[in-house]
Amino acid sequence: MRKVAVVGIGSTKYGKSDKTCVEMFAEAGMDAIHDANIAPKDVEALYLGNVLGDYEEDSMNIAPFCAAEIGLKNVPATKFETACSSATAAFRDAYTAVAAGLANIVMAGGTERALLMGTPLATKTFAMGTETRYEQKTGLTFPGVFAMMAHAYAKKYNLTIDKLKELLAMVAVKNHHNGAMNPKAHLQKEITLDKAINAPMIAEPLNLYSCCPFSDGASACILASEDIAKKLTDTPIWVAGTGMGSCGPSYMQKDVTRVIAREAASRMAYKQAKLDPKDIDVCELHDCFTIAEIAATEGLGFFKFGEGWKGVEEGETSLDGRIPINTSGGLKSKGHPIGATGVGQVYEIVTQLRGGAGPRQVDGAEIGYIDTLGGDLAVVVNVILRR
Amino acid sequence: MRKVAVVGIGSTKYGKSDKTCVEMFAEAGMDAIHDANIAPKDVEALYLGNVLGDYEEDSMNIAPFCAAEIGLKNVPATKFETACSSATAAFRDAYTAVAAGLANIVMAGGTERALLMGTPLATKTFAMGTETRYEQKTGLTFPGVFAMMAHAYAKKYNLTIDKLKELLAMVAVKNHHNGAMNPKAHLQKEITLDKAINAPMIAEPLNLYSCCPFSDGASACILASEDIAKKLTDTPIWVAGTGMGSCGPSYMQKDVTRVIAREAASRMAYKQAKLDPKDIDVCELHDCFTIAEIAATEGLGFFKFGEGWKGVEEGETSLDGRIPINTSGGLKSKGHPIGATGVGQVYEIVTQLRGGAGPRQVDGAEIGYIDTLGGDLAVVVNVILRR
Repeated sequence: MRKVAVVGIGSTKYGKSDKTCVEMFAEAGMDAIHDANIAPKDVEALYLGNVLGDYEEDSMNIAPFCAAEIGLKNVPATKFETACSSATAAFRDAYTAVAAGLANIVMAGGTERALLMGTPLATKTFAMGTETRYEQKTGLTFPGVFAMMAHAYAKKYNLTIDKLKELLAMVAVKNHHNGAMNPKAHLQKEITLDKAINAPMIAEPLNLYSCCPFSDGASACILASEDIAKKLTDTPIWVAGTGMGSCGPSYMQKDVTRVIAREAASRMAYKQAKLDPKDIDVCELHDCFTIAEIAATEGLGFFKFGEGWKGVEEGETSLDGRIPINTSGGLKSKGHPIGATGVGQVYEIVTQLRGGAGPRQVDGAEIGYIDTLGGDLAVVVNVILRR
Repeated sequence: MRKVAVVGIGSTKYGKSDKTCVEMFAEAGMDAIHDANIAPKDVEALYLGNVLGDYEEDSMNIAPFCAAEIGLKNVPATKFETACSSATAAFRDAYTAVAAGLANIVMAGGTERALLMGTPLATKTFAMGTETRYEQKTGLTFPGVFAMMAHAYAKKYNLTIDKLKELLAMVAVKNHHNGAMNPKAHLQKEITLDKAINAPMIAEPLNLYSCCPFSDGASACILASEDIAKKLTDTPIWVAGTGMGSCGPSYMQKDVTRVIAREAASRMAYKQAKLDPKDIDVCELHDCFTIAEIAATEGLGFFKFGEGWKGVEEGETSLDGRIPINTSGGLKSKGHPIGATGVGQVYEIVTQLRGGAGPRQVDGAEIGYIDTLGGDLAVVVNVILRR
């Protein structure tokens, strides 16, 4: 397989947008093209994440229209859908195409207009990411899935619910602190621990500040083969490894505090990259709910199982900690435009590895990790990037 | 890039099914696994086409559940969506992964339950495959798109509408003749030319027999790297080339009788395969409407532009003709389970190249072509297979 680098990135600000999915993607895509010092005609294929375009704006087969809008010339244009990890799945196949030699310069990205639907329709359609025959019939929605994870975690590791609520609030405070320094973030504001602990309840023990927002937004990046990457930029960010894993319905998840799909994905990514968790300098991971961040820091190997909560409490996942997590603000503060989120994480890690993250820069970051979860623990895609 | 072969195929019968998408896929997937003489644990990834699972059965993120149902072990499981060409797009990325060396044995397939929705909802949701800002606002649906193609074709090439209607009926008669010999086909019945000409009108000049049916169904195949393929089977069917192209909204399609995306896709596929149209022995192509078959036989280079209709009239596209088209019955008779169709076409071409098509076998077929169109001319995926 050929070496592949990210040579350009672009992103809209996440939040409420009046633009269509195609228009938002055009903004992110053109930014990525300019950042890579190439022209639209140089891009040989588009790999796009988009999840609910049909419910959002009656748009199903959106990839060719996104490609045409930015002047990509009749290129392969494919939409990927693995729920919240769609853009990361798109990124992984974009990487594979260049690694295989099928193309030299390709674009990966995602676009979503999640706020257009309103909360009731969004809740119903998002729930379609769960399994039909067994899970949906129980009335399961995503806050419920992660509330179960939180209860199981507290029980397994002998934490009181009040203690866990405080820890979850600390995750939210940290991510809002980071997001307040990110001009692309949806919720650019600090919050206090007191406010985070006492927010309105959503699904016990998860309250409003335990949950990420829905967001509109688009992100894009350009991947190139080694020889081209070296010509285009002095700071190519190399794809060191990728991984993807899956799991069936919840009844196959014997322990909901561990995400089997993530463990499969991270094994694959670390193996390909020939790296260990201790090698990672910075990580963007899937904090759709604050408990999901704690579980992910364990699943990716940064902490032992049952000790991820200590990492938050002791500040090890803060900007100046041992393994800074979600320096962008994460889904919690940066926002969660479902089908775009994964490449938004790539955007942040590339920014960090280039040393361009300003006040939220992780000093000397050379290796970064991207982790995106799709559905109720059903799919995880991981990417390791290095300077 | 490594050589890759199709080593196993499976398919449900197309038509009305009472099974869920996951259950149908399990049937096709297990058939493919058995056909390849492997076990589920050997399959390293799933690439799945599915388009309207959310409208059909509230199922959005279906790939991991399809994987789990047949015992694939926490493998990468990705859903592809490029409208009617979704499964072919999935096949192309499955091929790329093995060619790159990312995996040695993978499954590609698709599943769809199109009949569950009923015609009004199906018509509305299918129309979401067109472009939102310009096309949908005009009330454009797919029969309308292809009726425009038919009118433009007749005008450009000086055919009367009555003559064109007769030619379109001949396409339908041929494909029903082939489909009547295919035990997997949805509509296994011959039709007369008279019946085809005088069927109820849908969108002038396209009548009921100019249009393919909606179908339920699933298809799957196993792809393997060269060394493994040679161990598994005496008749590996090699992927000689693939291509994919796209185009923006209709106003970018200067001549609706030619499909820009197809011309881009076929150039790419022929170039990779180092083959010409004259090398092709058998072809499955996207006859969603009968006019689409005539246009595709030109776009793929089997006939000059403006002469595809002569191919039908003179029997060159019949089973015993120069270039047999849609030996399976095509979308017209075999059926069209949207997100499964492309791998259904792979199923037929592999069957032909193995010499296993029984009464509809094309003598001595060694090289076969697969062509799938997604949306209103927006995406085309092509695959060339050889014995």
